[in-house]
Amino acid sequence: MAEFNHDNFSCPLPILEHDTIQLAHGSGGRLSAELIERMFLPRFANEILNRLEDQAVFEPGPGRLALTTDSFVVDPLFFPGGDIGELAVNGTVNDLCMSGADPLYLSVAFIIEEGLPMATLHRVLLSMEKAACAAGVRVVTGDTKVVHRGSCDKLFITTSGVGLLPAQANISAANLRPGDRIIVSGTIADHGMAILTSREGLSFHSRVFSDTAALNGLVAAMLAAGGQDLHALRDPTRGGLATTLNEFAASSRVGIRLEEAAIPVRPEVRSACEILGIDPLCVANEGKLVAVVAEKSAEAVLAAMRSHPRGREAALIGEVLAEPRGLVALRTGLGAQRIVDMPLGEQLPRIC
Amino acid sequence: MAEFNHDNFSCPLPILEHDTIQLAHGSGGRLSAELIERMFLPRFANEILNRLEDQAVFEPGPGRLALTTDSFVVDPLFFPGGDIGELAVNGTVNDLCMSGADPLYLSVAFIIEEGLPMATLHRVLLSMEKAACAAGVRVVTGDTKVVHRGSCDKLFITTSGVGLLPAQANISAANLRPGDRIIVSGTIADHGMAILTSREGLSFHSRVFSDTAALNGLVAAMLAAGGQDLHALRDPTRGGLATTLNEFAASSRVGIRLEEAAIPVRPEVRSACEILGIDPLCVANEGKLVAVVAEKSAEAVLAAMRSHPRGREAALIGEVLAEPRGLVALRTGLGAQRIVDMPLGEQLPRIC
Repeated sequence: MAEFNHDNFSCPLPILEHDTIQLAHGSGGRLSAELIERMFLPRFANEILNRLEDQAVFEPGPGRLALTTDSFVVDPLFFPGGDIGELAVNGTVNDLCMSGADPLYLSVAFIIEEGLPMATLHRVLLSMEKAACAAGVRVVTGDTKVVHRGSCDKLFITTSGVGLLPAQANISAANLRPGDRIIVSGTIADHGMAILTSREGLSFHSRVFSDTAALNGLVAAMLAAGGQDLHALRDPTRGGLATTLNEFAASSRVGIRLEEAAIPVRPEVRSACEILGIDPLCVANEGKLVAVVAEKSAEAVLAAMRSHPRGREAALIGEVLAEPRGLVALRTGLGAQRIVDMPLGEQLPRIC
Repeated sequence: MAEFNHDNFSCPLPILEHDTIQLAHGSGGRLSAELIERMFLPRFANEILNRLEDQAVFEPGPGRLALTTDSFVVDPLFFPGGDIGELAVNGTVNDLCMSGADPLYLSVAFIIEEGLPMATLHRVLLSMEKAACAAGVRVVTGDTKVVHRGSCDKLFITTSGVGLLPAQANISAANLRPGDRIIVSGTIADHGMAILTSREGLSFHSRVFSDTAALNGLVAAMLAAGGQDLHALRDPTRGGLATTLNEFAASSRVGIRLEEAAIPVRPEVRSACEILGIDPLCVANEGKLVAVVAEKSAEAVLAAMRSHPRGREAALIGEVLAEPRGLVALRTGLGAQRIVDMPLGEQLPRIC
């Protein structure tokens, strides 16, 4: 994996009593304290975390808050375009900002397999630090548990996040109205296919990279352009675009029609999907969002997205219909229609 | 384990497509939706969770908030006196209320091993429901990941929580002052010894039970009695009382002297500790707290604790000294003193 670009490798591994994770690192005793002081604090230091109480205390200001949580069990830990640490920060940031909230604070809980090289943990922490910095969020509290060799697979990370909602935000899967436009922020299926093609036994000539990225900046630009006309937002992670749009159609009791030709898919991702017999609509994304916008603001929101680094390839891909309720249909390039069902399950476990 | 008292067994297992957890239950697709609708929602339903967005939105009111997170990997899942579900709710409730915060909202993230019996998950969820109800908190958002058989050990749960701090609360490990009194809310070492003695190969004539319990009601009573004189609070979980008091002494740069004879330990727990050569001061508790209270309010706080069901066996166990800074000393029954060190690691992994 030497070709991945980890430009923060310059920060050396701290000097520690052990070069692999020991059961005692999760014990709450002296080795736990060493792990916190030498590995975690240098990465995430801020005045809230530094108090080292069992809870973070902060004052987010008046108004509505958003709270979200996600466990990350991605395999492998490091994949083309990202790693579990970056994914854990970006995933929770994205779940917050999909409500319109400004992500502020994260908690991070590690479950580590005994024997994990300290250098692996360090590399993940550097990546989390970089992602948190890029997204403008602070890690304010955390937890570490260590389990016996064989009781978990290397490393699982659970991040939770708190964000503050602007007073005017009213974004919900239940807000779709007939005539609304469906916009996707860029190419789909990159993350899932990056994981799949990086797993053992599969190799492709063109490398496929994860799209993992924090989308809070993009959402802020969209809110500025669309305001109350931004009806729904979601990041189509597990289950892909097909799942998200089926959830929208069910929650709002509307139909959705997509134009297949308008949905952006990278050629190398499309090839990989075709070879493996996978529908890109059902594949996970980790740095894309789908937005439902009132018709009158759709062009303005699309333009704002295309002016943002995370939305350059944004595209209008469909619209909301009054009927048939709860159904998502796709108009193919040949003019035929097919129903886009919610997949029974992801083709691939441990995608995130 | 038929003798454990699970009085909520009357709620039957919902009818589901599968009687064990499948990889697709963590996929974000149709089986994930079934799991949420039939297993999770009936247990935790409330108007915030029911929106089924990727984040919970609520308005906690103005003021400071507390945020905390903990992963639970306890082995076995069901142990004398409790189970992983109850522990996960109570642990996070307790971390919140140790800042003086009123615990309000929880998030719950499950990492489940493929093949876990649905009946096991159901039993854990019933227990979480009961614990959340008893503590007066609401589960408002969650996540489920499923990993291959052998990639995790049955079930891990990560709970995060948000609570609201009363304006006057100023509780911190850094607030100890010479002359302050140390109070423990009841017998120590129950939880850790319950786990240890319930593991394979160990049996004792007297059954030892976990003390898992939510302490927010007790803390509210203590705040009412002690107000600003309540200087520090912590639940001595992993690493036990020894770790918590060493953390207090280090944070506040004070000494602490304990009276061994005053520290409540159940006879059966003491016996088990003696047989196994374990220091009860280093053993985990899950339903106890240690408080540091200004001398003038110590009696009032102790009386308030003893009037509360979770504090009936509360005891004054020591005091804060100006010197030697950072050290915890124990005066034994024979009048000798020994230093109580922070343990290197818990004697026992996966205690919580």
